[in-house]
Amino acid sequence: MPFPARTNTAEIELGKTLQPKFGPDGLIPCITQDVATGQVLMFAFMNAESLAHTLKTKKATYWSRSRSKLWIKGEESGNVQWVKELYTDCDQDVLLIKVEQTGSANASCHNGYKSCFYRKLADLDAAAADTSYQLNYTSEPLFDPAVVYKKK
Amino acid sequence: MPFPARTNTAEIELGKTLQPKFGPDGLIPCITQDVATGQVLMFAFMNAESLAHTLKTKKATYWSRSRSKLWIKGEESGNVQWVKELYTDCDQDVLLIKVEQTGSANASCHNGYKSCFYRKLADLDAAAADTSYQLNYTSEPLFDPAVVYKKK
Repeated sequence: MPFPARTNTAEIELGKTLQPKFGPDGLIPCITQDVATGQVLMFAFMNAESLAHTLKTKKATYWSRSRSKLWIKGEESGNVQWVKELYTDCDQDVLLIKVEQTGSANASCHNGYKSCFYRKLADLDAAAADTSYQLNYTSEPLFDPAVVYKKK
Repeated sequence: MPFPARTNTAEIELGKTLQPKFGPDGLIPCITQDVATGQVLMFAFMNAESLAHTLKTKKATYWSRSRSKLWIKGEESGNVQWVKELYTDCDQDVLLIKVEQTGSANASCHNGYKSCFYRKLADLDAAAADTSYQLNYTSEPLFDPAVVYKKK
């Protein structure tokens, strides 16, 4: 499970070896995108164990900071994310995975939405003038969290 | 420039007011996506000042952690990102902006690429078996950093 060590800036930025930077907390941010549509589904963190588990199983696996445990996406809800591609950025301190989101509801968000980014600022100009920070919904929920997460 | 205060979980997750969570370091992660193609261009951080400047000018403005200063994207390279939409996620601790990337080179990355995510893992199975963490380039650079960033 150990990943290649970080070497030097040139190698990290322009080389051809994955040398992920796990921060002081052992975590690296991960952006998750729908491989078919490009929609950003969610944003979470991985540690080395999560990344190794993701690669081994092809199921997107994060590190839950709130629960301090491995978080195999869809383990509870059934909405598994199958990883098709894994990218890293120039300085290799962020990961980007492209996934096929599956499951009966085909939703990423615990609130029942396809993507966690289901609200957008209604009016950029009003926000600039401090007059309104209103958000508009951009999609409908695909499942009822109260039913899917029975412990809630 | 003060943004609405965080209230309660229900309001943050399902309400219609932007209540961004700036971490203990005053920062919120921001994913930047091309509004036309959905390509993820970069990942950076904003503080309240950056976000206010972004809204006011519509130019994506981040907080440079390495330089500890406001970072108006494209100020030096000319590759400005015009913000068209701003989303937040369920718990409002991440922002997602959709931008029109402009400038002569139309590139986001300081290494000259359209997106900072210009490399992907060559073989997910080999990586799972710890046998190869090779990255493949997925695009060509659009400018020569040595020319654009003259200070380098």
